[in-house]
This record gives sequence, structure tokens and C-alpha cells, in this order.
Amino acid sequence: GGESPCSWHEKVLTLDTMNPCVRRVEYAVRGPIVLRALELEQELRQGVKKPFTEVIRANIGDAQAMGQKPITFLRQVLALCVHPDLLNSPDFPEDAKRKAERILQACGGHSLGAYSVSSGIQLIREDVASYIERRDGGIPADPNNIYLSTGASDAILTVLKLLVAGEGPTRTGVLIPIPQYPLYSAALAELNAVQVDYYLDEERAWALDVAELRRALCQARDHCCPRALCIINPGNPTGQVQARECIEAVIRFAFEERLFLMADEVYQDNVYAEGSQFHSFKKVLTEMGPPYATQQELASFHSVSKGYMGECGFRGGYVEVVNLDAAVQQQMQKLLSVRLCPPVPGQVLLSMVVSPPAPSDPSFAQFQAERQAVLAELAAKAKLTEQVFNEAPGIRCNPVQGAMYSFPRVQLPPRAVQRAQELGLAPDMFFCMRLLEETGICVVPGSGFGQREGTYHFRMTILPPMEKLRPLLEKLSQFHAKFTREYS
Amino acid sequence: GGESPCSWHEKVLTLDTMNPCVRRVEYAVRGPIVLRALELEQELRQGVKKPFTEVIRANIGDAQAMGQKPITFLRQVLALCVHPDLLNSPDFPEDAKRKAERILQACGGHSLGAYSVSSGIQLIREDVASYIERRDGGIPADPNNIYLSTGASDAILTVLKLLVAGEGPTRTGVLIPIPQYPLYSAALAELNAVQVDYYLDEERAWALDVAELRRALCQARDHCCPRALCIINPGNPTGQVQARECIEAVIRFAFEERLFLMADEVYQDNVYAEGSQFHSFKKVLTEMGPPYATQQELASFHSVSKGYMGECGFRGGYVEVVNLDAAVQQQMQKLLSVRLCPPVPGQVLLSMVVSPPAPSDPSFAQFQAERQAVLAELAAKAKLTEQVFNEAPGIRCNPVQGAMYSFPRVQLPPRAVQRAQELGLAPDMFFCMRLLEETGICVVPGSGFGQREGTYHFRMTILPPMEKLRPLLEKLSQFHAKFTREYS
Ligand SMILES: Cc1ncc(COP(=O)(O)O)c(C=O)c1O
Ligand SMILES: Cc1ncc(COP(=O)(O)O)c(C=O)c1O
Repeated sequence: GGESPCSWHEKVLTLDTMNPCVRRVEYAVRGPIVLRALELEQELRQGVKKPFTEVIRANIGDAQAMGQKPITFLRQVLALCVHPDLLNSPDFPEDAKRKAERILQACGGHSLGAYSVSSGIQLIREDVASYIERRDGGIPADPNNIYLSTGASDAILTVLKLLVAGEGPTRTGVLIPIPQYPLYSAALAELNAVQVDYYLDEERAWALDVAELRRALCQARDHCCPRALCIINPGNPTGQVQARECIEAVIRFAFEERLFLMADEVYQDNVYAEGSQFHSFKKVLTEMGPPYATQQELASFHSVSKGYMGECGFRGGYVEVVNLDAAVQQQMQKLLSVRLCPPVPGQVLLSMVVSPPAPSDPSFAQFQAERQAVLAELAAKAKLTEQVFNEAPGIRCNPVQGAMYSFPRVQLPPRAVQRAQELGLAPDMFFCMRLLEETGICVVPGSGFGQREGTYHFRMTILPPMEKLRPLLEKLSQFHAKFTREYS
Repeated sequence: GGESPCSWHEKVLTLDTMNPCVRRVEYAVRGPIVLRALELEQELRQGVKKPFTEVIRANIGDAQAMGQKPITFLRQVLALCVHPDLLNSPDFPEDAKRKAERILQACGGHSLGAYSVSSGIQLIREDVASYIERRDGGIPADPNNIYLSTGASDAILTVLKLLVAGEGPTRTGVLIPIPQYPLYSAALAELNAVQVDYYLDEERAWALDVAELRRALCQARDHCCPRALCIINPGNPTGQVQARECIEAVIRFAFEERLFLMADEVYQDNVYAEGSQFHSFKKVLTEMGPPYATQQELASFHSVSKGYMGECGFRGGYVEVVNLDAAVQQQMQKLLSVRLCPPVPGQVLLSMVVSPPAPSDPSFAQFQAERQAVLAELAAKAKLTEQVFNEAPGIRCNPVQGAMYSFPRVQLPPRAVQRAQELGLAPDMFFCMRLLEETGICVVPGSGFGQREGTYHFRMTILPPMEKLRPLLEKLSQFHAKFTREYS
């Protein structure tokens, strides 16, 4: 035949030949709804007429994207480190200069441009250890158990990677909350580990229930080897803050069942509700004494992306490991070294977050005022969100005790559910897509986080500026009412 | 028995239960020799007497750690972006301010603190595309095929991750050069892919030989499914710069054998030798016309860590994909989104590297002078290294045509080899450890990169400042002579 030898040349890498684990990964927070939001923004810029004038991205916990201003002191120190000529400028406070000089001294070649050691700059690991000690009422933290990371995401992926082993019925299973932050499901898919779901209790403000943990674990033991338990506290997307007794019960359970604990505590500074308080797993575990304090393995994660600073773009974070086997810790160190080092500017910001200006420092007053203003506004927005949603028929919203999200439950009429199914969409995806097209409000459907069968939710951040938030919540409620009428 | 139920409680995560792929990872550039160097530095600081007064870390391509100064313009723009109050300062040139404003406009909330889209800021992807077009003599580059990354390391790991599939005899094999940059072997171990070695030809200045590629491929097909071919050009650790004909032959080979090409071109600005010139795989492939230009899959990597800027700590880089299957590209996009985004400061630096000041800009003269000074000094150091080593009996060093390393071959006396074996060390590790202990010079043994059986090498960067480099090279040569006498 006259067929050219090349005309049929297939690609090496296709959907059929690529890594099947990667294919199974899903990541709703940046999924189809966000891609559509980007398109709509572009259409608006091109002058296409829409029933709204701007897209509001309430899909991701990105405070500065929503207009929150960076904390001045953090940026001053970082600017000084980036461009040390500024150390001669009279426009920078003395304490910022001192901090910058101290950090530069600890950098290779006294420059942010050198690779740091893979576990992060030793001085900053020490700063983190002091922070943890202060946070936990004096319980010691060892800098050598602290690894700085490229955002918390990177550290979570690293710890999960260490835990994954086995095949078939011995494959590593990892318990994760439902609803969850979808980094967990994505990482487990990528690593070919088994995702074991435990459900948070919506009726009790998304509390964690050890009986439910036990149910999930027992069922999972039939088909995999559950070896780790992930907790997100304060919760994303659920906004709950765990009570100390609950944490104790979880630790006892993990110890008895021999589960490695992963505590995602990136929202530790984001607690708003009256009566709620953040308790770190490390502190509770230590205060429970032996054998928990001396044997229970724990990894706790923190980040510069959340809290009052919201410095997501810098990709700073850390993990503290507790009771990790020494040989495994060496393996972790080795694994980290392959990626060379976490971004040094993110390390610098982390250092500021864990050792902010002291009351005697010239920058203290302004720093404190900026920090408090952000946290107070977040608390007000958390309250407002709960209140407005709960006034709307067919929407029910648990209190946003902490973190940066509400995760209200919405009633969707059966005909809407049916219509969605015809379109091959999850019903809450259908709702959220329609919401986006008609109002410009971008939220993430509950199906991206997981929810009990037959219930529907969406996640909306509390981050839009106060003056926009109330109209936004009202618009959303009104849209829900209209949507409900349309499909009744 | 009186045994407490807890006394025997074993760890969940041990060497035996952890991820076996991670255990197999090796990463010599930051291996035992570097850990020992860190210890020695600490001992020196504590006043312990040593036969040297400082440890010289010639183990890693980290220019600023070795004293190279950052390029002023890059840091000015970054400082302006980090702390936009500085836009009002008279101390910054007008073009730096313009660049900073342009970038801030493209950031969420006009701040580096917002997450960028996962593939990187669109404006910077466009800047990269223009750079590639200029570099490649006008051959078009599509911004949508460019993904910004957390250093080149991250992008390389991502592309490898996409390629890995199959089990047993269908497991993905990846051809890598020997000697190699050990990121490749580490990544393949971590991903449980098969490392297929092809040897560079030391006798021909580390040239790549297609016959050797063919040998490696044929042998590998017995036990795995080779699907990708990695090239490092200019080479690390070898310093060779590939001729255009060689690149053409490699592309033809890859096309005929259906191999995905990965071109690690992070040293594209580091070419020193008379007659050597950098040719990008993208350019050669495109100029070869169809079917290569239209069908051969390629991923090309670049970084802000090397070149004249050496901004390793910022973790900036990108990959350009060519002829990638559209559906796979979507999968790649999804995979990247799990880690949220590359560090924004690294993106900003990349933007400066790909769109530096133009001749009409106020910063041009200084930028150009700084850039040229670094590159001229690197060229002189490359020459000096080759020359001094080749004057030493028992050391043979190929010309350092490009990149940042020499990889000389050393003769080691049989009794030294025997002694090393008794100690359970690779012979060149034994040599390098002794070198470190006696001179404070830290280099990496050839066994960490791979070498032909029975040959011994070490990798030493050419980065120490000129005034230190000559004494260093001489000290090293003298140590080799002494070591040889000692074991003769
Ligand atoms: C619960 C939780 N963990 C981890 C992360 C990762 O954050 P980063 O990688 O920016 O530190 C997030 C981000 O939203 C989160 O919500
Ligand atoms: C050949 C090669 N590729 C990739 C890298 C990774 O560099 P980075 O992740 O800092 O961009 C290096 C670093 O030394 C290298 O030598």
C-alpha cells in the first residue's frame, strides 16, 4: 500500500499509555468550575455581556487574591533580604533590618539565591521550634524534627509518600475525613494508596466521632492495610474546631489501632467562634503522657498560606514529626534532598510568622494592629456567613468556628437532580455551574470534597471583602430560591 | 507474663514497612560526603583544630553560595514586587519599576502573596514563549505549552511521573546518560520505573553516541518497555556541549524508536568553549521538518538556578512541551494543580531572565556588564580547571565546554581500592572522604553519577572565586599525588 510509514505514527504518551494513577487524580478546588470562571473573566474583559460585571472567586482560600493586604512587617523584612542595599535605607524600621540581617547571615553566601539545606535553614527550624514551644505551653520541640517545605502541600505529599507500600490486600490505606480537602484524595490516587473515608457528623457541627472512625477502619481492614489517619483541624471545608476531648479520643484510637497520625493544622490561627480554641495534636499527645507521648507517631503541618498573613504565593510551610523512627527520618531527609530545597523566600516569611515583633520592637504596634484587624474581620465574616445562609429556606449552614470556609447544605429539587443526571453532572456541580453562569459567583460543589450520599453542599470562602460579602451571600441565597422554583 | 501491653509497641513506620521505592532512592549530591562536610564546618566553628581553616563546598552547582553576587536588576524588580511601597522610592530605576508594575498587575490581588494559576502567571508564560522564539531564531513557541515550575527539578519529576506505567516486563524504562545528574536515578527509583543507562564517551570529551543508545535500548527491551530518553545538554556532571549533528541523530533515533524526549537544558547560558554552541532540541527538531517537527514528543527544561544569575534558592523554572497529546496535557495541568502553584518569586525572577533590560532601558548597561562579568569569569575558571588538572599525573580532565563542573578521571592505586573495599566504600568515595578530611575540599565521588566499571572520577564545581580556585585545584592535585604514594 502507499501508506507512509509516518502517517500512523502514534504518540508515545497517550491517555492509554500514561500513568494510570495520575489519570485517577481529581482536584476539584481547581477543577472545571474554575476553568469556566477563568473563561468568563476573559469574556467579560472582551466586552461580552453577562448578567454580572465581575467573577467572584470564592472557590479557593486565597486571602490576598480577595484583596487582603500583606502584613507590612513581613514584606519589609523580605524586601530587605531580597535586596540588601535597602539595609541602608532610612525607610525601614530597625527591627526589620535586624531580622533581615540575622536571616542573611544564615544563608549560603548571605543570599536568598543560594540553595538552603534540604530540611530548611537551621536558624529558621530553630525559630519554628521556639514557636511550637510557646504555642504548646512550653512543651519542647526539637528543630531537628522540623522540616521546612514548599507550602504544606509538599510536606503532606512527602509524608504520605513515605507511608505507601504493599499491594493487593496489604496496600496502605489512609483514613481521611469526608468532607476533606481534596489534596488528600488526589495524593492517595497519585500514590496508588487506598482512600478510607470516615464521615464527619454534620448534625453535630461536623464533629469527628470515634465510633465512625472505628467503623471505617474495620471495613477497610477487609481489603487494605490502614496505616495512617489524617485529621484536618480547624477543618477545611467544614470549619469545625475540634474539642480537646475529641483529640484525646482520636489519639487513643490511633495508638490502639496502630495508625500514624497526620494532623493538618494549617488553620491553627483561624479560630473565631466563642468557646472554640485550637489544641495542637502535639500538645495533647504530650500531655497524655506515656505511652502516647513517647510512642505515638505524629506529623503536624503548618503553612504561611493561611492564618492572618495569607502568603500563599510564597509556598512556605513546615512539618513537625514526633516519635518518628530514626532510620525513617533519615530516609525522609534523603527524599527531601532530591528536590534540593524549599523556596527560600517562603522560609523567610515562615520565620517572621513564627517569630513576629516583640512588644518592645518598633514594629510591634503596627504589626499587631494589622494582624488583629485581619482576624477580627474574618471572625465577623464567619458569623455573617452562617447567619445569612441560615435565613434562607433550603440552605443550612453549620457555624464557621474556624478556617476560611462555609460548607452549607443545600436542598436541590428532584427535578434538578434529574436534569443534572441527564447532563452527566453531579447535582451540586450542576447547581454551582448555573450559579456561576448567572451570578458570576464561583464556589466549589460539595462532591469535590465528599459528602453523604444524597446530600448536596458547596464550599464558599469567607474571604471576600466585608462590603461585598453580604450582597454576595444574599445573591447566592436568592439564586438558590429561584433555582428551586425553576425545578419545582 | 508481666509484660505490659505497650512495652513492645512497634512503630507503624519503619524501614521494613515504609515505601520500598523511597528506600531505593540515592542522591549523592547531598549524600554522606556533604553531611560530613557540614559536621566539619561545625567542628571548625567550635574551635576543633583541622589541617584546614575552611570547608570549600565544591559539591553543588550553587553559585551564590560560592560568593557570586546576585544580578542587581533582578533583585531590584523582585524587591519592588515584594514591597510595592518602594515604587515611590527614587532609588530604583524606572525600568525596574515598570517591570514590577507589569508583573503585579498580572498577580491575583496585585500581590505576590496570592496563589497563581497552577501553570504559572499567564503573562510570564508569554514572556517565556517570546524568549524561546528569540533564542530559536523565530521558531514559534506557544505560551500554553509552557508550565512554570518549582525549579527544573519539579518539572522533570512531573514529566517522569506522567510517563510511568506498567509492571514487570511492561514497566516504563527511561534512558539516562551515565554519568548523569542523580535527580534522574532518584526520580526513577521513587517512581518505580526502570533506569536504562547509556554511557557517554569519555574518550570523545563525553560525546553522546547513537550506537551506544541503540545498544542500551536493545538490551533494555528484554526486561522493560523503554519509553523516554533523557539528555542533559550542556552536561552535568560532564560539561560537554552537544554538536548539532549529534542532536539531529538523537532526534532521529528517538523518533524511529518511539521514545519521548526529555531535554534538560538548564545550562543553556553556560557555554564557554571556543567552537561550542548551544542548540536547543526544540529548534533542531523543528528545523528537521516533518515528521519530526510535527510528531516527535519533547519536553525541554530550564531553570533560574544556573546561567549567569544562579538564583537557586528561589526555585524558579519551566518546561516547554512540544507535540504532547492534548488529553495528556490536560492531565498534566490537573496534576500540577494539586500542588497549587510554583513559588511566585521564582516566577518573577524567571520573567526577568527571559525578558531582561533592552538596550534602550536605563538598567541595560549595568545588567549587561554584570552578566558578562559572571560568564567571562566562569569561562576562565572552566579553562583553568581543565589546565591544572591535566598537569597532574594520574588525573585526566576533559574540556569543560559548558555547565558548571569538571568531572576528572583519577587513577587510584590498587591498594587504595582494596582498602576502600575493606571499609565497604566505593573507591572514589574513599578518596573523596579522605580529601575532605585532610583538605576541607568537598567534591562528589563519580560513583554518585555513574561511571564505567573500574574507572574513578569526582565532580568538582568551577564556582569557587577565581582567587581560591587555583590554590584549590593545586591542593587537590597534590593530595592525589600524596594519596597515590601512600597506597603504592
Ligand atoms: C487543609 C489544608 N491543608 C493544606 C493546604 C495547602 O496549603 P499550602 O500548600 O498553600 O500551604 C490547604 C490549602 O488550602 C488546606 O486547606
Ligand atoms: C542537569 C540539571 N538539571 C536540573 C537541575 C535542577 O535544578 P533546579 O531544580 O534548581 O532548577 C540541576 C541542578 O543542579 C541540574 O544540574
